[in-house]
Amino acid sequence: MAGNHRYCVIMCGGIGSRFWPYSRTDLPKQFIDFLGTGRSLLQMSYDRILPVVPRENVVIVTNERYAPLVKEQLPELSDDQILLEPARRNTAPCVAWAAYHIAARDPEATMIVTPSDHLITRQHEFEKALRRGCEFVEGRDALLTLGIKPTSPETGYGYIQIGDEVEEGILKVKTFTEKPDRELAKVFVDSGEFFWNSGMFLWRVSSIISAFEEYAPDIASALGADRAAFGTPREREYIDRAFPGCVNISIDYAVMEKATNVYVETVDLGWSDLGTWGSLFDNSPKNRDGNVTQRCKVLSYNSSGNIFAVRDDKLVVVDGLKDYIVADAGDVLLVCPKSEEQRIKQMVNDAKIAFGDKYL
Amino acid sequence: MAGNHRYCVIMCGGIGSRFWPYSRTDLPKQFIDFLGTGRSLLQMSYDRILPVVPRENVVIVTNERYAPLVKEQLPELSDDQILLEPARRNTAPCVAWAAYHIAARDPEATMIVTPSDHLITRQHEFEKALRRGCEFVEGRDALLTLGIKPTSPETGYGYIQIGDEVEEGILKVKTFTEKPDRELAKVFVDSGEFFWNSGMFLWRVSSIISAFEEYAPDIASALGADRAAFGTPREREYIDRAFPGCVNISIDYAVMEKATNVYVETVDLGWSDLGTWGSLFDNSPKNRDGNVTQRCKVLSYNSSGNIFAVRDDKLVVVDGLKDYIVADAGDVLLVCPKSEEQRIKQMVNDAKIAFGDKYL
Repeated sequence: MAGNHRYCVIMCGGIGSRFWPYSRTDLPKQFIDFLGTGRSLLQMSYDRILPVVPRENVVIVTNERYAPLVKEQLPELSDDQILLEPARRNTAPCVAWAAYHIAARDPEATMIVTPSDHLITRQHEFEKALRRGCEFVEGRDALLTLGIKPTSPETGYGYIQIGDEVEEGILKVKTFTEKPDRELAKVFVDSGEFFWNSGMFLWRVSSIISAFEEYAPDIASALGADRAAFGTPREREYIDRAFPGCVNISIDYAVMEKATNVYVETVDLGWSDLGTWGSLFDNSPKNRDGNVTQRCKVLSYNSSGNIFAVRDDKLVVVDGLKDYIVADAGDVLLVCPKSEEQRIKQMVNDAKIAFGDKYL
Repeated sequence: MAGNHRYCVIMCGGIGSRFWPYSRTDLPKQFIDFLGTGRSLLQMSYDRILPVVPRENVVIVTNERYAPLVKEQLPELSDDQILLEPARRNTAPCVAWAAYHIAARDPEATMIVTPSDHLITRQHEFEKALRRGCEFVEGRDALLTLGIKPTSPETGYGYIQIGDEVEEGILKVKTFTEKPDRELAKVFVDSGEFFWNSGMFLWRVSSIISAFEEYAPDIASALGADRAAFGTPREREYIDRAFPGCVNISIDYAVMEKATNVYVETVDLGWSDLGTWGSLFDNSPKNRDGNVTQRCKVLSYNSSGNIFAVRDDKLVVVDGLKDYIVADAGDVLLVCPKSEEQRIKQMVNDAKIAFGDKYL
């Protein structure tokens, strides 16, 4: 069965700092039951992939500090399905390690790469798109990305410009553009030629390893120097030594923007990267006052358009608050207008300057 | 020495519901280091009285559930200095019990009655006023209240209308008016004839017991039926039986507004009853952004005029908040405009209806 050569790598090492303090260094966003479904975003990502990929072909890549969280949330995975990064190096070294690891087990493998903290509401379309994409890359040396039809001129996403169609719904990629300004994003969306970069990729492990060797040779030589180590007891020690020396770079910058065999499969998945409080608000059910409440009880008076994200059965009582974020995680409380959420990064930084790591 | 016949009763049984959730049923306002001085309001009230009254003549009256808090905060008091009410019955039964209790020990006693949760900044004036007042009531059968010269038309206070001066700064009381509306309060203040009722009283125990017998005979007969019980091991059991049957009524309504031998000593003590978030804000030092922070660390952006009252070393990060109360006590968070604080009572009630006693 084709499925047995198909693997899924779930990238799970982020710290979700844009959702601070609801997402904290010790409990990032992907480990939280963010949407109140009873499953964390990681668990939802895992559940979502199982119809396409056998359980034993799922690989989680995360920072070593989150090993206990992954094991607690996905107890059915064996230790060799959890790759523990000894340092934060963005997505390119993460993908490279996973590719070498899987290739050692199955040189014929096809690899689906997905973030652990996104939302997809159209499960059936998702499965269809992955199967279609796998078939496409299994027939050729191609790097395939899932492109989402844009619904608004978002400035926080990467945009993919499409070229010629090679099969129905699969097109050559012309360019990548990261985070355009509002005006440019509007031009992109109106043109019909641009799609959002979902951060989900499909390729054969042999294709992505070749691409690393050609476009990111420093990463390929740092991690690929001793390919015999992968899948053996030596792997962990080898990675602990080699991984921290890799450059901190995303897979988009390191490979996708340079490679010539890049394709996009255009999809409509009910997708959100849940990357901002605004997108979380938009994707969450509202109560009758128009507020979103995450895992807390709220008594609200003259208040609407707010998002309350509070841990642990806490009661929130608000009066006269419109369009705010109220986020609480025990020892930190944040109250900030939704329109000012881009300032949160600065706030985290200020908290670090003032109090060290205590509140991160 | 005259001081040895002088006693102070500190009333300490309130629940401070106007400061919910910062003040909670299990840790009311008077037990909190409300002003960040290192001493709770009860401890500050106790410290304040010691220059005037010997330590062993201080009597605390509180609800029995707060016995551990009183003993922890005032460990130097012996058990017979702490009167534990088996039920909440407002100030009249509280004062009556304290009077019988003290009279059993010293029939010649003079009694100062004070709340446990007010602020007085002019300590020297306070001591002078108490000594002066004690001398006054020790010479006659008089019920004396301390009247504060009003500085603004507060609607939350009781007002005392003065009559003829009988000694310098001590005058007959003409009328009491509880919580006038704004317009009437303005007339009161402008007239110069009205003073704020501070809730601090002075009298001989014999005088107040006579007044109870005449004006509140139900309380006098309920608590005074067996005066031989006071000061004996029987007292507690006697009170447990008799006290809950008393009417729930303030000393002002039960006695002061009816008696004819009522006097006011006009004083200027830098007094606040700290009865509202507004008065707490006014009486607290502001940081350079014009916010008041109670026992917490605050990073504020575009925010001023707020009061942050948060327990336990919590970090509060706010943006774009003006003139709000942000109060947090672990499992409850309140965010409410300062101008709407009179609604908090309703919020507490709503929380009770929705969740029972859990968040009170």
